[in-house]
Amino acid sequence: MAKKSPVVIDLKFGRASVTAALGNAFAGREVIDMALPENAGRDLSGIPYAVVWKPDPQLFARAGDLKVIFSGGAGVDHILSAYELPDLPVVRFVDRSLTDRMSEWVVLQALAHLRRVPAYAVQQRARVWHEIDPQPEARDVTVGIMGLGVLGQDAARKLKVMGFNVIGWSRTAKMIDGIKTFDAAGLDAFLGGTDILVGLLPLTPDTRGIYDARLFARLRQGGALGKPVFINAGRGGSQVEVDVVAALEKGVLGGASLDVFEREPLSPESPLWGMESVIVTPHAAAASDVRALFAHVEEQIERFESGMSLQHVVDRKAGY
Amino acid sequence: MAKKSPVVIDLKFGRASVTAALGNAFAGREVIDMALPENAGRDLSGIPYAVVWKPDPQLFARAGDLKVIFSGGAGVDHILSAYELPDLPVVRFVDRSLTDRMSEWVVLQALAHLRRVPAYAVQQRARVWHEIDPQPEARDVTVGIMGLGVLGQDAARKLKVMGFNVIGWSRTAKMIDGIKTFDAAGLDAFLGGTDILVGLLPLTPDTRGIYDARLFARLRQGGALGKPVFINAGRGGSQVEVDVVAALEKGVLGGASLDVFEREPLSPESPLWGMESVIVTPHAAAASDVRALFAHVEEQIERFESGMSLQHVVDRKAGY
Repeated sequence: MAKKSPVVIDLKFGRASVTAALGNAFAGREVIDMALPENAGRDLSGIPYAVVWKPDPQLFARAGDLKVIFSGGAGVDHILSAYELPDLPVVRFVDRSLTDRMSEWVVLQALAHLRRVPAYAVQQRARVWHEIDPQPEARDVTVGIMGLGVLGQDAARKLKVMGFNVIGWSRTAKMIDGIKTFDAAGLDAFLGGTDILVGLLPLTPDTRGIYDARLFARLRQGGALGKPVFINAGRGGSQVEVDVVAALEKGVLGGASLDVFEREPLSPESPLWGMESVIVTPHAAAASDVRALFAHVEEQIERFESGMSLQHVVDRKAGY
Repeated sequence: MAKKSPVVIDLKFGRASVTAALGNAFAGREVIDMALPENAGRDLSGIPYAVVWKPDPQLFARAGDLKVIFSGGAGVDHILSAYELPDLPVVRFVDRSLTDRMSEWVVLQALAHLRRVPAYAVQQRARVWHEIDPQPEARDVTVGIMGLGVLGQDAARKLKVMGFNVIGWSRTAKMIDGIKTFDAAGLDAFLGGTDILVGLLPLTPDTRGIYDARLFARLRQGGALGKPVFINAGRGGSQVEVDVVAALEKGVLGGASLDVFEREPLSPESPLWGMESVIVTPHAAAASDVRALFAHVEEQIERFESGMSLQHVVDRKAGY
């Protein structure tokens, strides 16, 4: 039996989870982990596979024999922005675990704003017993999801089960059972009917800065929650943070839940940390399960080596 | 056409919502609202229907011609504890809105503890960017629901959609699709497999003080969340609050979400307000929608007057 081809990994994840997952992954295959100092200057020729998250941009120039690049997460903007990127298939990480975790976070945040968690937290700290009235129920509130890929569709389904009215938007029209959808031309109608906006868009030249003052101003005012809420679990580069802060201060937005930011980690100076109606999490909505990632990569390598087509290959022109 | 029989209401709810709902309810029927001062000394004879929430216990002695008592909420302990209670049918309030609201709150709290909301809130206030690791996903965690009536079954279904493993307990065995259930004899096995305990029990002599130190000690330690979590949306009389506090302080419990308390409003002196892993809400998990309540009462009166059987009649002996 021929020796299995090696894999180079460059994953800017927590070391403990990567090390633990490597213990049971890529059996019979050499793994070159770029996080180890001894690999810093190593010759990377002859390696066909790379598994990366925010890789050293020089990696692609050094590993001149790559055949497939695997992203360590659902997003691929961290790879596509590498100017030395060779013209190779880039495979996104899509798996059940990542999808379920993202939906947990999205449903949690939508329910948190529906059920006035930020206001009740303020009351709790002041030891105030006061029922906030009125309390609309989920069916009175429309959640509008921007981005209807695997993650957006799963979140939509679960938000519907919780009772929310759900609508969706994507660049190109999509048909999803039980969900009214809009495409690029329908953005105004979509935003005008949205009480809670959920951002699950990939970062591309088209979506950079898309969540800005102009967009927030088009969301529905006077819905069951009074003011619209902005939830972003996609990419920080899609939001204009000064506009988010201004919209919250002016009451154009009534609240926000943000897991992603223009610059991460979010600066301690950011006013977002201290705003009572804002929930900040440190890009933790859907951490990749590294074991699941390696299992997915192994499966795709197996397909590739047996002549089958790779799955979840990125459309380089669309950017996702 | 005969004149319609009158209704007496004694609802200790927010006045605004009662007044608003009365505007469109009980058409053609006289409504005696005991919250109005002019009705304080009024003769209540000849009135067949009472709609009550925490009523004046003397109401039942004064309204000697009652035929049906309607509870303003899902619980009926506030009625059954009235020592002058005549031997009449007591109808619980069960409706879609109440059920949906309760499930919103239960799913919100289960997700909040799964996704470390209390710990992330502490970090946010300190402007700390730190991903809490490990982050188990819902399928790694078992939610055990005590109380498998309409509310418990709906919560179970929605928790399952969110990915949780769900088990259930009730005094008498129940069969529920896709949920492993336990009865009185199986309490130990149920508790020993539970990471997040959800209390949705009615308050009866059997359930008074059921959530105590002994019970908390039997919950699973060392599950995916490390320590078990206690969520109570049923009745405050079912929990021994000094035991809840002690269990949290000793680490027998890792967190709690409480909507109900032994005495409401919860005293500003209670240590629960200030505990970082505890979420307190002011008996607001599933406020009765008063319009829905009156629609339900009207429907039941119509059934009653046309000779059909009443629905959701309380078993006085079981206490719910």
